[in-house]
Amino acid sequence: MDLHGVLPILPTPFTADGAVDEVSMRRLVDFEVEVGAHGVSVLGFMGEAHRLAGFERRQVVAATVDQAASAFPVWVGVLAFGAAGAIEQAREAQELGAAGAFVAPPPVQNDQAIFDYYASVAGAVDIPIAIHDFPESFRTLLSAELIARMGNDIEGLRYIKLEDYPVLAKMSRIQASAPDSIGIFGGLGGMYFLEELQRGSRGIMTGFAWPEVLVGVYEAFRSGDHARAAAIFDRYMPLIRYEFQPRIGLAYRKHVYHERGIIDTTFIRPPGMQIDDYTRRELTAVVERVGFTLERRGVQALVA
Amino acid sequence: MDLHGVLPILPTPFTADGAVDEVSMRRLVDFEVEVGAHGVSVLGFMGEAHRLAGFERRQVVAATVDQAASAFPVWVGVLAFGAAGAIEQAREAQELGAAGAFVAPPPVQNDQAIFDYYASVAGAVDIPIAIHDFPESFRTLLSAELIARMGNDIEGLRYIKLEDYPVLAKMSRIQASAPDSIGIFGGLGGMYFLEELQRGSRGIMTGFAWPEVLVGVYEAFRSGDHARAAAIFDRYMPLIRYEFQPRIGLAYRKHVYHERGIIDTTFIRPPGMQIDDYTRRELTAVVERVGFTLERRGVQALVA
Amino acid sequence: MDLHGVLPILPTPFTADGAVDEVSMRRLVDFEVEVGAHGVSVLGFMGEAHRLAGFERRQVVAATVDQAASAFPVWVGVLAFGAAGAIEQAREAQELGAAGAFVAPPPVQNDQAIFDYYASVAGAVDIPIAIHDFPESFRTLLSAELIARMGNDIEGLRYIKLEDYPVLAKMSRIQASAPDSIGIFGGLGGMYFLEELQRGSRGIMTGFAWPEVLVGVYEAFRSGDHARAAAIFDRYMPLIRYEFQPRIGLAYRKHVYHERGIIDTTFIRPPGMQIDDYTRRELTAVVERVGFTLERRGVQALVA
Amino acid sequence: MDLHGVLPILPTPFTADGAVDEVSMRRLVDFEVEVGAHGVSVLGFMGEAHRLAGFERRQVVAATVDQAASAFPVWVGVLAFGAAGAIEQAREAQELGAAGAFVAPPPVQNDQAIFDYYASVAGAVDIPIAIHDFPESFRTLLSAELIARMGNDIEGLRYIKLEDYPVLAKMSRIQASAPDSIGIFGGLGGMYFLEELQRGSRGIMTGFAWPEVLVGVYEAFRSGDHARAAAIFDRYMPLIRYEFQPRIGLAYRKHVYHERGIIDTTFIRPPGMQIDDYTRRELTAVVERVGFTLERRGVQALVA
Repeated sequence: MDLHGVLPILPTPFTADGAVDEVSMRRLVDFEVEVGAHGVSVLGFMGEAHRLAGFERRQVVAATVDQAASAFPVWVGVLAFGAAGAIEQAREAQELGAAGAFVAPPPVQNDQAIFDYYASVAGAVDIPIAIHDFPESFRTLLSAELIARMGNDIEGLRYIKLEDYPVLAKMSRIQASAPDSIGIFGGLGGMYFLEELQRGSRGIMTGFAWPEVLVGVYEAFRSGDHARAAAIFDRYMPLIRYEFQPRIGLAYRKHVYHERGIIDTTFIRPPGMQIDDYTRRELTAVVERVGFTLERRGVQALVA
Repeated sequence: MDLHGVLPILPTPFTADGAVDEVSMRRLVDFEVEVGAHGVSVLGFMGEAHRLAGFERRQVVAATVDQAASAFPVWVGVLAFGAAGAIEQAREAQELGAAGAFVAPPPVQNDQAIFDYYASVAGAVDIPIAIHDFPESFRTLLSAELIARMGNDIEGLRYIKLEDYPVLAKMSRIQASAPDSIGIFGGLGGMYFLEELQRGSRGIMTGFAWPEVLVGVYEAFRSGDHARAAAIFDRYMPLIRYEFQPRIGLAYRKHVYHERGIIDTTFIRPPGMQIDDYTRRELTAVVERVGFTLERRGVQALVA
Repeated sequence: MDLHGVLPILPTPFTADGAVDEVSMRRLVDFEVEVGAHGVSVLGFMGEAHRLAGFERRQVVAATVDQAASAFPVWVGVLAFGAAGAIEQAREAQELGAAGAFVAPPPVQNDQAIFDYYASVAGAVDIPIAIHDFPESFRTLLSAELIARMGNDIEGLRYIKLEDYPVLAKMSRIQASAPDSIGIFGGLGGMYFLEELQRGSRGIMTGFAWPEVLVGVYEAFRSGDHARAAAIFDRYMPLIRYEFQPRIGLAYRKHVYHERGIIDTTFIRPPGMQIDDYTRRELTAVVERVGFTLERRGVQALVA
Repeated sequence: MDLHGVLPILPTPFTADGAVDEVSMRRLVDFEVEVGAHGVSVLGFMGEAHRLAGFERRQVVAATVDQAASAFPVWVGVLAFGAAGAIEQAREAQELGAAGAFVAPPPVQNDQAIFDYYASVAGAVDIPIAIHDFPESFRTLLSAELIARMGNDIEGLRYIKLEDYPVLAKMSRIQASAPDSIGIFGGLGGMYFLEELQRGSRGIMTGFAWPEVLVGVYEAFRSGDHARAAAIFDRYMPLIRYEFQPRIGLAYRKHVYHERGIIDTTFIRPPGMQIDDYTRRELTAVVERVGFTLERRGVQALVA
């Protein structure tokens, strides 16, 4: 296990007529390099992977990998109705140069079937696999026991992107049963990032549109300055929390990335929610209250 | 609207090592021609479409269309997480020669989003589209009002494969609101086929492995011999009902098609359920009680 | 374990203004005695228990127990959001003279929590408890392993009313793990009653409004005349299947009991579905096709 | 509509052997009076209402109303499987002196059925009714249109406790359609309380165990000092967010109320989650970082 740090989940940018916008995608990658991210994740839920055609998935992965070059690893989301589809996607990611794949569980509430699913995907590729444990979106429940067993018994299954409530208690249960065989990454917009690090997570994969904050918390924590990590985390929590609203968070984030000059449009494929003028002002107010601004380009300095 | 009759949902046959078995697929098509079916449907739930990779979907459709030649139309199932994926699949079906596509709803419980989903798929192809209303598998609920509205307002959306309980009441509600714009096909293993015909359905798309019975009921009914249609239906109901058991029906049907010499193996992709020896004997007993046999090849004569 | 046979799930009859109709309730009990049922079950899903107030639950149980006198045992359904409510209901049933309680699982998808729930209810009363395994209504999944463990380890937990698909496979798995500690009763409208008996079930608790058929199958089977049991079962299957339609079955059954002169009204509490004139004629046609009539009072003779 | 302000959802305290602890309940009420709350809400989800027997529900309501005397209104939660049960609970609440009832939707995904449910409950009592819109727990989805229609058309239905994501967008949609007929209260642990007030909510009903903060935000906002409201809100957000973790929040809150000397035990009825020593220290750290302490009794001063 060597993956660690902040790997932002990138939104998939679209042109005004709704096509994948590779130019903006590359600009997103450049921004994440500039901000000091340790990698990026594409084709997650926030990347609207479920709203892309197969050829568009390939387009997103290829452009991201190409732009990232050797700067950092690119992880790719896999979401399918069954193992054959998941294997096809994971192999495609590998062929396109992805460093790893985070794989949603199958829509089957049966422990052995879930185990077999992950084993078949992990066995079909050479890149490492992460479980994406996010029942709010995928509806499949994975017990801590099952996750630990998969971590211990499936070669190639090395990480979990953990987004099942209560996430902190579950993290500790998994670690108790599989201390060395499964690395844990947080998500959930960064809502519990500090406590996750304190409990031993390796980093985070999430879509918060101010990765400066996540990188700041992570680097302070890793350098041993836990007080500074907490100070940053607490200061920006009103913004983290605002952005994290389920179902509408993507619209906030595309708006932020657009205002920051990184993506060309705020286009979201239907049935994704849009935000109105009032909400944009409300978001601006929260952004400004924590000391950021939507009016400047480039990485912004932390105040804490 | 010209589609009508019995369009069996074909299982996807596999070789002993789990690959798509085109030879058996073609034999299935030949059998359906021989039995007098009015078409076939592939890549439905019983076709394990959710367990196939993209390249395998194409393989199944191509082989079926090629083998069917001009004998009858081939309808193809579409199941995706979003509209872009559904359009990609529907276009692929059209390019491969399918006569139409039956499309599962998106995993979104929102009437307008569902309407837009079907409108975008129907608008992207030239072949007719059918709604696949099967909440037990897809979890999305479609009201009769929404279905009627889609039938009335979406060009190219012409049929529905209706499998939502109570199916008879829903069928009549849809017909009352969209009498001329949406043709109704039954499913649910044929459990309510007679009453569906009496209420004005155009036919059935289902996986019952004795299509002789469905064709017999349909032809008797269409010829005006309603008493004979009912007699056939009632006589074979113990078998229809036995095969229809949710989650295990596919295993019954692959066993039957295998015993009848049509497909080479009973292989089902995980996590599909298998049946044991006891169950095979139990199935044989039901088959024999209605007057069929698993020991003979070819179409079997109806007793009623 | 001494419970066995046919214990019809009784609908709760209402007066024309929607109050519990004790007189009709008592007539239902008398009819079940006359038909040779081995007991009755009240306050099940088909008994609209979820639509009754607490005082009405007590009213239904008291009237049924009083009318049944020593004729046969009365089983009572328990449905609650948590253990305290379930215990309260089970104790009430016991105090009112019920012979046992069939208990819906808690709305929690966690094996240990489910085990503890049943253990706490069984431990709070002296009457035997049955699990009601019906995920279509209760949404909680119970694995065969969990059921067997509960049967083996919880004193007082003696039976299961099994209505989870595929029911036959699950029945055999439970029996393999808990052969002597949990008696199995079928449900599901009688759809698999014959095969359930063949696999060793002790009987059935279901709402089919022609208990003559279920008693006929059961008595023939128990006397060793398996061919006659099968003949009866098959002959009436078209009616069993028609009545069993999810969500509307209760309306069919209240109509049948009303036509047969047993209950005074077909009142169903909202949001229960009603049936229209067309459907009543459709039902009548099915009834007549199997050789029954809605025009005569009293137990009807079987034709098979 | 005259209800407004902060009405904390009270947990139900238990004695060490799991019985309802009336003494602690009364101490909770006294604390809420002292802290300046505008009312209290009992028998909500956080009040473990689903884990209480009927006689315990009555006990909780009676003790709370008696202790509150004329200090402030007591609102009571109603959760039932059907309208008869809900009416029974609402009438009981009224008889015991409750000021209003917040009513969970029925477990039925059908707009007309939901409308009729609320209409029948509101019509059966003289106290005002609030909708409890919390699909994460109750699984029933209520559209903004349906809520507005119920607010406009059902007399006695006056408020909504809104906890459906994204809550801010939904709030504005409801207000646009029913500006004067339905008052909106927030929940969700206070996560969006500031923005809810800005959008016109009348207050909040939630379980955050530091009601000082909610009262502080509310009073500052109502006095027109919006900057101070925001400053308080932002400063305590790290704690609000920590406590709000789904499924484990109740354990945090009982621990806090216990440490603060208000309730005698942290007992939670199974299958509620408990917290371990590590988590208690983690919680203490968050509490102290925002400037509170678990070591002192009584209302604590705000730092902002």
